[in-house]
Amino acid sequence: VPPVIILVTPQLGENIGMVARAMGNCGLDQLRLVAPRDSWPNPDAVKAAAGADWILNQTQVFATTQKAIADLCQVYATTARSRFMEKAMVTLPKMQEKWDVVLPTGILFGCEKSGLSNEDVTLADYILTIPVNPNFSSLNLAQAVLLVAYSWFQGQGQDQVHSSMLTQPAPKDELLHLFEHLEKELDQSGFFFPPHKRPEMVQNLRNALTRAGLTTQEVRTFRGIIKSLTKKIDNNF
Amino acid sequence: VPPVIILVTPQLGENIGMVARAMGNCGLDQLRLVAPRDSWPNPDAVKAAAGADWILNQTQVFATTQKAIADLCQVYATTARSRFMEKAMVTLPKMQEKWDVVLPTGILFGCEKSGLSNEDVTLADYILTIPVNPNFSSLNLAQAVLLVAYSWFQGQGQDQVHSSMLTQPAPKDELLHLFEHLEKELDQSGFFFPPHKRPEMVQNLRNALTRAGLTTQEVRTFRGIIKSLTKKIDNNF
Repeated sequence: VPPVIILVTPQLGENIGMVARAMGNCGLDQLRLVAPRDSWPNPDAVKAAAGADWILNQTQVFATTQKAIADLCQVYATTARSRFMEKAMVTLPKMQEKWDVVLPTGILFGCEKSGLSNEDVTLADYILTIPVNPNFSSLNLAQAVLLVAYSWFQGQGQDQVHSSMLTQPAPKDELLHLFEHLEKELDQSGFFFPPHKRPEMVQNLRNALTRAGLTTQEVRTFRGIIKSLTKKIDNNF
Repeated sequence: VPPVIILVTPQLGENIGMVARAMGNCGLDQLRLVAPRDSWPNPDAVKAAAGADWILNQTQVFATTQKAIADLCQVYATTARSRFMEKAMVTLPKMQEKWDVVLPTGILFGCEKSGLSNEDVTLADYILTIPVNPNFSSLNLAQAVLLVAYSWFQGQGQDQVHSSMLTQPAPKDELLHLFEHLEKELDQSGFFFPPHKRPEMVQNLRNALTRAGLTTQEVRTFRGIIKSLTKKIDNNF
């Protein structure tokens, strides 16, 4: 089941809205607030949610963290600081293997200013840390939620690998005709100089063009280009 | 080397600041802006950066995307929409294997409202997609940067896979000069016909040549080819 995101004493409505947007991006929709500083519903949140209204509309507000996690079987407390607690720690990358659980799960995020209180962390089964730059580790609240939500989303296998947009490269004979066309014109224009270097020059040219994996249409385009660039001779006769 | 983050025509200073903060969280520090809507430096950005001042202080501003990528050898364009372009696509989870330690690399992000233009996408070697909820896929700008930066940060701890590329692709400004040279000659030879199709034809051409990953030497060769194929006019005068 998708985890519940729980913001404990969040301060800015804008951050709550951005949390909702990030959750929507990653397919989560259960948001709970514990004693938000400002009243709820909050117009700043709606604005920042950029369309994730269905999440805000069903957001539940609780007076205490204990009440907010009452129906959950597994709770993680996100924190950057070490808490010197006897509690199992999990890093976000390791969560990939743990998301696939049937237990109703909640993830606690502290307020913008000071994070979770030790009391709240104590309620959790695990401490969840997001490994970032140790010299600048303070994540914006919505950014922290995004990283966790994205990790969950990836774990879902919903990360469909887009098949490459590339269409099929042209059959080799079309490519070879392009090479021959180009090389013939370059012979006539005296490009291959000195002559004994011609084989190497041709090889380099062909390598570069082969690497492009040109389609049939593109081969046709390049032949058109060669024709266009060389036709002026006739015009001048 | 860490990738350069490039925001193309960003609108809100606050988003730029949050981008800087997210970069700082993930150990990136090179930020470039292409034609930001508001003047730079921007106090809104400083406030939202929450201390990532060292990134804002060295942020470079460019007039065009072309100038912003001139010294880079590998460019990714982040986009949610499919562009129907002949360009290789990479999903963010797959980037873990691709974060290249050798090539100077840039990641393009479009503006908040509409993302990257097709013209900008055409300049890139790859399209980078971030797989999220297909029914609510619009990521906040800073959120998108965070996911990419975090992916890079995670990749740093892993065994680096070295580029299979034998030699280094040319810096983008060399490639752009090749494009301009070729297109100028094709304009003169009347290749782009009918005229209203020119933008699409240019886009296809640039995509095909970008895909080849031409080296500096190969770019020089192709410019020699164009010169060689077009010089005959003069001979006939």
